[in-house]
Amino acid sequence: MILTVLIALFASYCHSADWSSQAILYLDNSPQAKLHPVPVRAVKLTDGFWKARQTVTIEKSLPTLLALLEEHGVIDNFRRISGRKKVDRKGPLYTDSDLYKWMEAAGWALHTGEYPQLRADIDRITDEIAAAQEPSGYLNTYFIEDRVKDRFQRMQTGHELYCLGHLLQAGIAYYRATGGRRLLDIGVKFVDYLERDFGPDKKPLLTGHPELELALVELYRTTGERKHLELARYLLSGVERERLKLKDSEVKYMFSGSPFTSRKQLEGHAVRAMYACTGAADYYLETGDPAYRATLDTLWQDMTGGKLYLTGGVGSRAAGEAFGEPYELPNFQAYTESCAAIANFIFNQRMLAMTAEARYADVMERALYNGINSGMSLDGTLYCYRNPLASLGEKIRNPWYNTTCCPPNIQRTILALSGYFFSTNKDGLWAHFYDNAEMNWKLESGTALRVTMKGEMPWKGKSVLTIDPAKPEAFTLNLRVPAWSRNTRVTVNGQVVTASAKANAYFPIKRTWNKGDRVSIEFDIRPRLVEANARVPEDYGKVAVQRGAMIYCLEQPDHKTGNVLNVALRAPVAFTSEWKPEMLGGVMTLKTRGVAFGEQPLYRYRDEATASPLRPADLTLIPYYAWANRGESAMTVWLPLR
Amino acid sequence: MILTVLIALFASYCHSADWSSQAILYLDNSPQAKLHPVPVRAVKLTDGFWKARQTVTIEKSLPTLLALLEEHGVIDNFRRISGRKKVDRKGPLYTDSDLYKWMEAAGWALHTGEYPQLRADIDRITDEIAAAQEPSGYLNTYFIEDRVKDRFQRMQTGHELYCLGHLLQAGIAYYRATGGRRLLDIGVKFVDYLERDFGPDKKPLLTGHPELELALVELYRTTGERKHLELARYLLSGVERERLKLKDSEVKYMFSGSPFTSRKQLEGHAVRAMYACTGAADYYLETGDPAYRATLDTLWQDMTGGKLYLTGGVGSRAAGEAFGEPYELPNFQAYTESCAAIANFIFNQRMLAMTAEARYADVMERALYNGINSGMSLDGTLYCYRNPLASLGEKIRNPWYNTTCCPPNIQRTILALSGYFFSTNKDGLWAHFYDNAEMNWKLESGTALRVTMKGEMPWKGKSVLTIDPAKPEAFTLNLRVPAWSRNTRVTVNGQVVTASAKANAYFPIKRTWNKGDRVSIEFDIRPRLVEANARVPEDYGKVAVQRGAMIYCLEQPDHKTGNVLNVALRAPVAFTSEWKPEMLGGVMTLKTRGVAFGEQPLYRYRDEATASPLRPADLTLIPYYAWANRGESAMTVWLPLR
Repeated sequence: MILTVLIALFASYCHSADWSSQAILYLDNSPQAKLHPVPVRAVKLTDGFWKARQTVTIEKSLPTLLALLEEHGVIDNFRRISGRKKVDRKGPLYTDSDLYKWMEAAGWALHTGEYPQLRADIDRITDEIAAAQEPSGYLNTYFIEDRVKDRFQRMQTGHELYCLGHLLQAGIAYYRATGGRRLLDIGVKFVDYLERDFGPDKKPLLTGHPELELALVELYRTTGERKHLELARYLLSGVERERLKLKDSEVKYMFSGSPFTSRKQLEGHAVRAMYACTGAADYYLETGDPAYRATLDTLWQDMTGGKLYLTGGVGSRAAGEAFGEPYELPNFQAYTESCAAIANFIFNQRMLAMTAEARYADVMERALYNGINSGMSLDGTLYCYRNPLASLGEKIRNPWYNTTCCPPNIQRTILALSGYFFSTNKDGLWAHFYDNAEMNWKLESGTALRVTMKGEMPWKGKSVLTIDPAKPEAFTLNLRVPAWSRNTRVTVNGQVVTASAKANAYFPIKRTWNKGDRVSIEFDIRPRLVEANARVPEDYGKVAVQRGAMIYCLEQPDHKTGNVLNVALRAPVAFTSEWKPEMLGGVMTLKTRGVAFGEQPLYRYRDEATASPLRPADLTLIPYYAWANRGESAMTVWLPLR
Repeated sequence: MILTVLIALFASYCHSADWSSQAILYLDNSPQAKLHPVPVRAVKLTDGFWKARQTVTIEKSLPTLLALLEEHGVIDNFRRISGRKKVDRKGPLYTDSDLYKWMEAAGWALHTGEYPQLRADIDRITDEIAAAQEPSGYLNTYFIEDRVKDRFQRMQTGHELYCLGHLLQAGIAYYRATGGRRLLDIGVKFVDYLERDFGPDKKPLLTGHPELELALVELYRTTGERKHLELARYLLSGVERERLKLKDSEVKYMFSGSPFTSRKQLEGHAVRAMYACTGAADYYLETGDPAYRATLDTLWQDMTGGKLYLTGGVGSRAAGEAFGEPYELPNFQAYTESCAAIANFIFNQRMLAMTAEARYADVMERALYNGINSGMSLDGTLYCYRNPLASLGEKIRNPWYNTTCCPPNIQRTILALSGYFFSTNKDGLWAHFYDNAEMNWKLESGTALRVTMKGEMPWKGKSVLTIDPAKPEAFTLNLRVPAWSRNTRVTVNGQVVTASAKANAYFPIKRTWNKGDRVSIEFDIRPRLVEANARVPEDYGKVAVQRGAMIYCLEQPDHKTGNVLNVALRAPVAFTSEWKPEMLGGVMTLKTRGVAFGEQPLYRYRDEATASPLRPADLTLIPYYAWANRGESAMTVWLPLR
């Protein structure tokens, strides 16, 4: 008992760090974290690829989506409870979460110290939310009035805990931006209510859609209250399967309700599965429970061995928005929900912090530059729910979805992005991604450190880092060498350190760093052909084109004649890279001379010499993320290779 | 008015033919029929491939399925209405149709003149059905008691007319077998009820699941009552779309509710679409309406150009059991319902009668020997609902389905099969398929004609026809030369008539035939590789193996080591055909030396020389129809070609 109190006091001490120094994940006290993320506020993206995406997100995406949330009654749903507005409840039962995710996105934007209007918006909405919370702490705009009796009665589909998870994450983002606790406290009050009434000896609880797990661990990291970690453990434990009489199909679909550590493969609803993995990874980071680690490794191998799209997307099937079988990776029919790619990104963020292994950052980069970035139009007003790898030209971008989970999820990812660039550990600094950026932070020794990153990444293969420690100090700078760079040259102050840093690894530079030291890292960014395992049914005999982090595709608007679904690359394939500043917000295009198939029957006997000749065809490839920004058009990532 | 009466009288005269001379389709008076099927009863399959399937269907499949229909309350549903049994109604709302289809199957079996027990079974069930029919004529076991108010109120999903269609077909099969009209009259009484109360100026009617259309045309052919043809026309016309306020999505899914002649592509529920086409083809055969013919041609081209599986299956998508986009022909995920392949078979049966063109018989053969025959296990007790072209080894055969439409559909197809072998026209006789059979029929001149067909088709490439006209007579014998036979040699009484009859065409032999004339047709039955249009995503770079009418597959039980999903054929591909009398009921296997892929990551850069070597692998292929008869196992039709 005394021990428990002491642990609690110690934990509370550990977590007393200033709110402003907490990163997206605040892992400074997490026993299993090998890396500690540098806070969002400490890194400013400067003019470049991602800065442009952040700008459009803040200037276009946030305000237009907020207007749509108002228009569709999502905020009125709160006003209705507080009596401020007499309206019907609108939208599906999880609309609260869409608003919370928007608030989280806006919250991350505040870390720049700018955007007072955005802060006012959040404060105003927080006021509406607070007014809707019941004195007990319960808060949900759907389970009210004659649905009060349904609270926690249909947890497989009810999304009550899912909404709470996103409320907590919004509260944490805002708290870490401003120190303001009001939104966070609303969430905590609901959590307190749960912790009071639910648990093994009380009423049973289930995350029908995992998400609360990771939010609770982050809440524990934020407040130091161990009971939040305990609640996460309880939710991941699956102990309530019998009390709740969960069916096998439910447990599979939800990726919840059975012990997380009993999972052998990714299955069921992809976003649920990936959020469950993320929450379990968070739980492992705090506890070191080896059964969790073993399961996380098994599931990660399952994904990267047969269930991951080249774009970082996951979830092959529209039916159930679900994972398919290994190698079931259709391109046209790919479901690949934006939210699933984001969940994959944050799952790998945890695995990277846990291991400091580049392969996790590789999956993050794959998702971020491709299957996540594709999810928002270049102008910031249209969103993909699905991100298929081939299309006949169906409408794929819309301003709003009845289930509008993806748009604010993309926003919160992009607006927190600077927080994913760097980590520290006791040995030094780790750089994970390359773009124009400025970090103003400190080493774990306490020495202030400023790093500027300049170059033309992701389009040209070079980044220059200027290292400015407050005083000369020996530490290791770990630079991620992406998997796609076969030859990577690193210099420090003009001296070659290596001409061929190992790909898909961190390259360590251990030295005493002085103010103004310049590190240059030059990647081999020439286009490469990727091939898939022969067991992927739709990719056999085909290749995809990757240049740097970008997966490329062939889209119809770049081809006045012919059909991009009826062409092939011709070996040996040679590309000409061409920078097009006016096109699609500025993209590097790839041109090559391929072939077009002639007219073919559906089936023919191979021994019948009726094959029509291949005609030459000039092909232009664009980065996958930029597709479907010129109307609805055919597109394909995987191309036959003749 | 007088004209109408005269036409009616004439029609009635035309249709006065003896019941026993009516074929599956009674087209003798159909203005647009170029061919007239020879009746089921006039052709007896003798020991051989299809005779064995008929035997197992009669001895195993019919009795076990009847027992299951009883066990699941399908017949009790009728007894419940007549008050003969106090039970709850069981099963989905279309169970009546499953029983009717079983009765139709049994009805065709009676054409052999055997199976008195089967006749007693039908008579007994007919009695149960008759007792359940309302005095008005209405008959449906679902829309009773408190659901009486829902009659014809939810026609998109209600299946009332669908059940009636199958009742009529069962009645017609039994009538043509025995001359007994009782079952047929039950159906006619319901049709009379419809014709009294429904129509453009009365209450609106809709086939939410097309089927009644083709049954009504056949009823017209059977009774000569033109009003039945008129009702079919009305249902195909789509005139009630506005009155019924049908949504676009409904009209698309149902392939009903909008004018058939406005259809541009196959879409929506595959069985519905194919039955609609079949009914429309029947309507055209009677009326010659050119708009129907144009639409039928468009839809047939749409199917064979991009929506037809190599096995004759159609309907790519599980969602909505639906047609996909052109070239959307996934193998593992293929839905390819047995009923859809059967619907495709009977659609092409009509097109063949309409045109006398071999390409329609080619599709029939493709479906019959592959995607239909696969639908029933070799022992006749298990059925496939889906017939995918590749499988990880999921359970695919079951004795019963909640929607058990496929099992009796397969039964009725197999038991009527002899009726698909021959047709006549004024010029002579047409042979469509080759197996051991005896035809005792007549030329259209009236001369009795007996034809025996002997050989070892479909396994060995030769069939000998002995032609026995009652008296010497000049006529044309048209022999179908299948698309798969590159070199086809025909002799008459040992004299070569041609050494290379054109493939996928009918080869006409016009001469004066005498008793005992022997025609030999020798096909090139060597295995051939088939390749698909490059736009079929899952088939690119792969080939399928066809030998005669049979599509082959690779199944795991024939491979003790390695995984059949991880191998390729190696060019040039050479096969050894080996007859295995004890295996899978007797099959011709194909052996070849292929390769197995080594371990591969999910993705790799092509420029990295990490490809693991290909290992030689001995491969054994079996006919596709015979798969999944040795437990659940991996299987694939399409094989990479290295």
